[in-house]
Amino acid sequence: MSRVFFDVTVSLDGYLAGPNRGPDNPIGGRGPMLHAWLFSQRAFRQLLHLGDGGETGVDNQHVEETFQRIGANVMGKRMFEEGERHWPEEAPFHSPVFVVTHEVRAPWVRKGGTTFYFVNDGLEEAVRRARGAAGSKDVRISGGANLIVQSLNAGLVDEFNLTVAPCFLGTGLRLFDGLDADRLSLELVDTLPSPRASHLRYTVRRK
Amino acid sequence: MSRVFFDVTVSLDGYLAGPNRGPDNPIGGRGPMLHAWLFSQRAFRQLLHLGDGGETGVDNQHVEETFQRIGANVMGKRMFEEGERHWPEEAPFHSPVFVVTHEVRAPWVRKGGTTFYFVNDGLEEAVRRARGAAGSKDVRISGGANLIVQSLNAGLVDEFNLTVAPCFLGTGLRLFDGLDADRLSLELVDTLPSPRASHLRYTVRRK
Repeated sequence: MSRVFFDVTVSLDGYLAGPNRGPDNPIGGRGPMLHAWLFSQRAFRQLLHLGDGGETGVDNQHVEETFQRIGANVMGKRMFEEGERHWPEEAPFHSPVFVVTHEVRAPWVRKGGTTFYFVNDGLEEAVRRARGAAGSKDVRISGGANLIVQSLNAGLVDEFNLTVAPCFLGTGLRLFDGLDADRLSLELVDTLPSPRASHLRYTVRRK
Repeated sequence: MSRVFFDVTVSLDGYLAGPNRGPDNPIGGRGPMLHAWLFSQRAFRQLLHLGDGGETGVDNQHVEETFQRIGANVMGKRMFEEGERHWPEEAPFHSPVFVVTHEVRAPWVRKGGTTFYFVNDGLEEAVRRARGAAGSKDVRISGGANLIVQSLNAGLVDEFNLTVAPCFLGTGLRLFDGLDADRLSLELVDTLPSPRASHLRYTVRRK
């Protein structure tokens, strides 16, 4: 059965994006430091058509494995709206994306296998539809932070990977604000060490 | 030459202590989950005379190596005042502790090699005196959070270990509030994986 997971990179002080974010700078100040590890990976460069080459170590293996397991995505309205301005015509998902929104809109088909579906019945319904679309593959909660926390609190997340980048952002958008910590228990299932970043993998259970 | 470091455990959402802390409960609600990994280690149990036995894997190795390198400690006033109520007569430092405080007080000698010195000339002077006392060993910034952040911002910290415990605290005392992130750069030097917790080691440089 499909697993529901998320996979994001945070700074060592817990930020998913830096200060002074805006429509033209969704990652915020100092934010590019977060993804320095990712942009040098071969699998990521291929996915975004950034050219040949790139690293092929454990970080690349993590990127490859993550993309290969995704059968469908669930995304918040704000992340979609930011992405709509910035993604290339071939949006980098190559699978269905279910956007949780109040906007009523026909599916938006992009080159390369990405179709955005706009779900008006809430997060749980979006996850249900994503499970249906994913087949034997998994469902990724793409983000943003608010949707990830909502998904955790609702008991919808089976597991996640947190990549901890070796940088401080100091301020910005925190990943884990608003957690229902009393009802969530974690098990650390794997730590993938790399000189570039630490990939920490957990399963999660709602008590 | 002595290195100045800190070594603390945080929850995955970045808290050093849980909610509703007070003089009789410095670790706060849900806080004991942070140190579950530590209390089962042989080296820690021996240090606190908690009895024989305990685990002897990578977590224990980390505890042993950390204690062996400490030649002196620097501590904030609040951590000292909390500890003064809770430490056993043989305080668990076995080395000099320099407390940054406005209180004028004679050195307080405890059994087992711990002496608390009260430094009234600020953090840098406390670190200078701790270096002098440490000899060829290292200086540990013991805490709390505020003193650690002050030490980072002042460029006094050479390296640190962050142990990330597999739990959410949801709220409480954050470790990394108030960082001067623009002036601090990190290098990830090692990740020590264990099923109990992730030990992440960094060197730090002030730009």
